[in-house]
Amino acid sequence: MAAVTGPEIERLIALLSKLPGLGPRSARRAVLQLIKRKETLLVPLTAAMADAVEKACICTICGNVDTQDPCTICRDDRREPTALCVVEDVGDLWALERAGAHKGRYHVLGGVLSALDGVGPNDLNIGKLVERAGNGDIQEVILAMNATVDGQATAHYITDRLSGLGLSVSRLAHGVPVGGELDYLDDGTLAAAMKSRRPF
Amino acid sequence: MAAVTGPEIERLIALLSKLPGLGPRSARRAVLQLIKRKETLLVPLTAAMADAVEKACICTICGNVDTQDPCTICRDDRREPTALCVVEDVGDLWALERAGAHKGRYHVLGGVLSALDGVGPNDLNIGKLVERAGNGDIQEVILAMNATVDGQATAHYITDRLSGLGLSVSRLAHGVPVGGELDYLDDGTLAAAMKSRRPF
Repeated sequence: MAAVTGPEIERLIALLSKLPGLGPRSARRAVLQLIKRKETLLVPLTAAMADAVEKACICTICGNVDTQDPCTICRDDRREPTALCVVEDVGDLWALERAGAHKGRYHVLGGVLSALDGVGPNDLNIGKLVERAGNGDIQEVILAMNATVDGQATAHYITDRLSGLGLSVSRLAHGVPVGGELDYLDDGTLAAAMKSRRPF
Repeated sequence: MAAVTGPEIERLIALLSKLPGLGPRSARRAVLQLIKRKETLLVPLTAAMADAVEKACICTICGNVDTQDPCTICRDDRREPTALCVVEDVGDLWALERAGAHKGRYHVLGGVLSALDGVGPNDLNIGKLVERAGNGDIQEVILAMNATVDGQATAHYITDRLSGLGLSVSRLAHGVPVGGELDYLDDGTLAAAMKSRRPF
């Protein structure tokens, strides 16, 4: 197709379409919206991005994304110091925080062990986790990996690495999601929910 | 929820979630991706946006979005000078160009007439269209509005305004989409397709 717009705008579309959740078509719509709302959207967004380029950093303690290091959560003295929640990615940390599900601090692995993708223990933030878990403050490590094969294999590996430190190691419960209907659930979830049934 | 990340990053998420096709959750994923791929994605995207802030403009002839005025299409001498295609929005122009469906020039209305939304003829780029259509070069005006009630009402209104200029005015065909199955089509489309049937 011949050019219908300037190369700078084509380039903006191409870059935006690399974001997760946006394809070429929605990137085009987004760019038109940005240009239509130049002063109220494009200009502030450009400034916010320049800000992020300058200030965004990874917390050297837990791996959270923030604009200060140590991050907001690691600095927060009101956090429970004895419970450490291990997650695969920063997005999972934010999801648990949105839910208000954990009052302690976090540790971001940066992925999961995967033979298929060639991810081994040294590619993840595991050595640092063992070090943090053994520093005396931590009493419980909560493994909040995704309930996938790789996630659970990683949880097992970490449990092995932490054994001998005298910590209580737990994982998230498997079961029926709140609001979920049995008829739509897979067999594995139903079996896990039945096995872990609770007195009523 | 307490802050889990810096205010600059929260602001970037809030702005990104205003783009069409992105909600708060996908904006959060996009921001994490941007920060993870800082050098390869965030930095070039910020530069491309700053470029767009500086250079993006609306073509004063046709209403296309470009980085030069007149736009690439209006400047292109190889374009058929006698056919003018009228579209609602710049996205429609780009869609027709992707399809290679039109060899002439375009005119972007910037919306459709809508009693409900209080959009009248003076809110659209119609006066300029009548002026262009009457300048002697144009022989055919193709109305490529969406096949909605408002789109078709706008097409009727424009046909009235152009009557007396001695132009041929046409609209896009209604019918079965290529690859479409009759069983899934609405009654209006089927009736239109039957009415406009062609010798085989």
